Amino acid sequence: MNLLIVLKTLGILLLGESASMLPALFVAVIYGENTIFPFIISILITALVGFALFSVKIKDNMIRYKEGFAIVSFGWLSASILGALPFLFTGAFSSFIDAFFETVSGFTTTGATVIQNIEALPYSLLFWRSFTHWLGGMGILVLTLAIQPSLGPGTFQILKAENPGPISAKLTPRVSGTAKILYITYLVISLAEVFFLLIGGMPLYDSLVHTFGTLGTGGFSIKNASIGAYDSVYLDIVITIFMILSGVNFALYYQAFKKKSPVEFFKDKEFKVYLSIIAVYILVITININGRAFNSILESFRYTSFQVASIITTTGYTTADFDLWPDLSRALILSLMFIGACAGSTGGSMKVIRILLIYKYVQREINSLIHPKAVKAIKIGDMPVQGSVLSNVMGFTVLYMAIFILATLLLLTQNLDLISAAAAVAATLGNIGPGLGLVGPSSTYATLSDFTKIILSFCMILGRLEIYTVISLLFPQSWKK
Amino acid sequence: MNLLIVLKTLGILLLGESASMLPALFVAVIYGENTIFPFIISILITALVGFALFSVKIKDNMIRYKEGFAIVSFGWLSASILGALPFLFTGAFSSFIDAFFETVSGFTTTGATVIQNIEALPYSLLFWRSFTHWLGGMGILVLTLAIQPSLGPGTFQILKAENPGPISAKLTPRVSGTAKILYITYLVISLAEVFFLLIGGMPLYDSLVHTFGTLGTGGFSIKNASIGAYDSVYLDIVITIFMILSGVNFALYYQAFKKKSPVEFFKDKEFKVYLSIIAVYILVITININGRAFNSILESFRYTSFQVASIITTTGYTTADFDLWPDLSRALILSLMFIGACAGSTGGSMKVIRILLIYKYVQREINSLIHPKAVKAIKIGDMPVQGSVLSNVMGFTVLYMAIFILATLLLLTQNLDLISAAAAVAATLGNIGPGLGLVGPSSTYATLSDFTKIILSFCMILGRLEIYTVISLLFPQSWKK
Repeated sequence: MNLLIVLKTLGILLLGESASMLPALFVAVIYGENTIFPFIISILITALVGFALFSVKIKDNMIRYKEGFAIVSFGWLSASILGALPFLFTGAFSSFIDAFFETVSGFTTTGATVIQNIEALPYSLLFWRSFTHWLGGMGILVLTLAIQPSLGPGTFQILKAENPGPISAKLTPRVSGTAKILYITYLVISLAEVFFLLIGGMPLYDSLVHTFGTLGTGGFSIKNASIGAYDSVYLDIVITIFMILSGVNFALYYQAFKKKSPVEFFKDKEFKVYLSIIAVYILVITININGRAFNSILESFRYTSFQVASIITTTGYTTADFDLWPDLSRALILSLMFIGACAGSTGGSMKVIRILLIYKYVQREINSLIHPKAVKAIKIGDMPVQGSVLSNVMGFTVLYMAIFILATLLLLTQNLDLISAAAAVAATLGNIGPGLGLVGPSSTYATLSDFTKIILSFCMILGRLEIYTVISLLFPQSWKK
Repeated sequence: MNLLIVLKTLGILLLGESASMLPALFVAVIYGENTIFPFIISILITALVGFALFSVKIKDNMIRYKEGFAIVSFGWLSASILGALPFLFTGAFSSFIDAFFETVSGFTTTGATVIQNIEALPYSLLFWRSFTHWLGGMGILVLTLAIQPSLGPGTFQILKAENPGPISAKLTPRVSGTAKILYITYLVISLAEVFFLLIGGMPLYDSLVHTFGTLGTGGFSIKNASIGAYDSVYLDIVITIFMILSGVNFALYYQAFKKKSPVEFFKDKEFKVYLSIIAVYILVITININGRAFNSILESFRYTSFQVASIITTTGYTTADFDLWPDLSRALILSLMFIGACAGSTGGSMKVIRILLIYKYVQREINSLIHPKAVKAIKIGDMPVQGSVLSNVMGFTVLYMAIFILATLLLLTQNLDLISAAAAVAATLGNIGPGLGLVGPSSTYATLSDFTKIILSFCMILGRLEIYTVISLLFPQSWKK
């Protein structure tokens, strides 16, 4: 491992983080909050640490797989450690673990919170909290769509450059060009959401922070009752649509824009399956909760649509407490936590493309029983999928389940009940936010033990970086010279 | 599909089933029960149906994969339908679905019961009920170890003949010879258990039925409190040991016998992992329940050992109500339901060999991230595992989980709570018996709806025949001429 290049790159990242605290400082100045000084201190410390790391003298500037994995893993970790400073210095949190959990939750675009009364916190701090979502979302986009393909096979392998077509992501030949296109797309969709929220009467500040949470598929709100606090059909519809849009592969926006045709979206198999899953879940849950949670079919449909869009995209905003719904709906929502949005979006969890590949894999196995000699290649659309991609997906799936089971068992040592523990892990590993039971939509992660919060923080990072990246660092081979 | 040969083979099977009701008739005669006539009628009807099917004129006696799958699937189904007759004719059950559920549970060696007061039933009927376990266990042994390898790749592929060594099963070149060795091994271990139970003071009748339940890893008892009713440390130990023995690959007994050395067992990787899993689960659960469910460490160890052995071997006998244990232990027991015993045993569920292969598969995937160019073959012991076997195992795992989720969701439409529904499916799909919550050890499946019982019966057959066999029949290609 070329540790020096890793440290230097982390330095650049932290300098960037320091700069990205400036908008929150600006909010503090506008509202005249007493958080100005804490923010200045946080910015300086982060910049100082960043500069110290950046000053490291490197002998060799080669970044291979293992250095890439280390940069990404420690990048998310160190950004979360220093990003926690404003929470501590403003006095909002007294516990470092709580502040760390909240920041990890922000940067991984999870949205699980340990704040019991959000509305009591200063605007500037809540702005920084939501801004971490927006930054984390953009970070993951650049990582999956722009940088990773150049790292070759490995993490995010399903998006790798050798496999063009609907599961490709190499938008333009050069990374910097790709990243630029992504920034612009991300910014344009963000501005569009702010615009539509403003039209619906949401104040500018609220519109901004909720846009951050939507685009990053994060879910931090500034209201204790989340989006439900606004109780507006119009706002529900706008946010539902923008959540679904944020769960789409961002490469598709570029393709549709370049070819000036929205038909491009419907040429993508994953996109179509993604919409179909949303439709089926909305249909079944609407029928299930109608007459139980809500009295009219329209109301049931309204709240189901929002919650389904929120969970599949792994956003985690809520307008209703789905933990009070019938057990069938609760179980469906739990199952939705394992699906997630499209690859190449800001969403977390398993991703629709993997579910699709698993389905085709099983279909092929059954087929080979009836026709033992026929070996059929698996295709997505017209593109054949390589064997190594399939192994990667199957390995990922099993690893995801294994981590889910292991983490749930660890949480059960902390006096959590079975459903709360399982849902807490599903909701953090999938970067969703709210779970069921003790960590349901009307509750927070505040009352959990420190040990539990550390485990769940690790789950959030594991989930966000699609496991392999982080796990590979646990092997001694990664650290050899 | 050559339907005629399927029907003719089913005829032979039913004639055999008819004959196997004779011992229960004999019990009825000994105890002078009023079940003599109902048994005679059941025997005659089963023989008549069997004879009618056997008389079918066949044009072509070739049995290919698809005919094999049909014989096995419809074999278990028709044996369960006709095996239900004694339950109906003796008046023990008024509902056909209940009688069918109980018989499916018997032949699949599940042990899930709908009888609320077992001790009120006649001896002869309970004898038949437990005897179905013993028959079902022998049936699955012959199927996996003797007949299936000749059917070639496909179902039970991990045992297939092309793959000799520890995961092989072709004991002797000819099927009939293999089957004979199995019968003898099965009988010898059965007699040994009866002997040790008798020594411990268990009456002969009780010893016989509990041996049937142990060897078949079934779990039907003749006591409402299962083995706990005897409250004997000695009997607990004997049954614990024989449950563990029944979960071992039966091919190993033959190998150890032939080489006159028990060392053969420890040359088998799956056997070692099986014992290790048992040891780890006993250790963790003993620590977890000590001071909560039981006051002394010895008592905790005693009850944990029995329950762990019972669940991993998918037997389902109980000496304690593990549903009252702390949630960590309950979750561990639930996870154990997905592991199961060794391949080539009478146990159900996923099987240790698959867990082992999945582990190696994931290990290889992680390794390929660090050394992208190194392609390593997966080995069990010294034997390389073929790619097609790995695909089969990965496909099976995902399919198993998919069926688990789907069936749980279906059960949730029937007003079951989430944990009861999930545990009921895990316990039937894994052929275990008792689950958690509403279907926990102190309860039965009696109160569930008919729809639920049909779904769970289907789960039992799917699990017993390792899914692919049954699923492949749902595809139209299987039925083409």
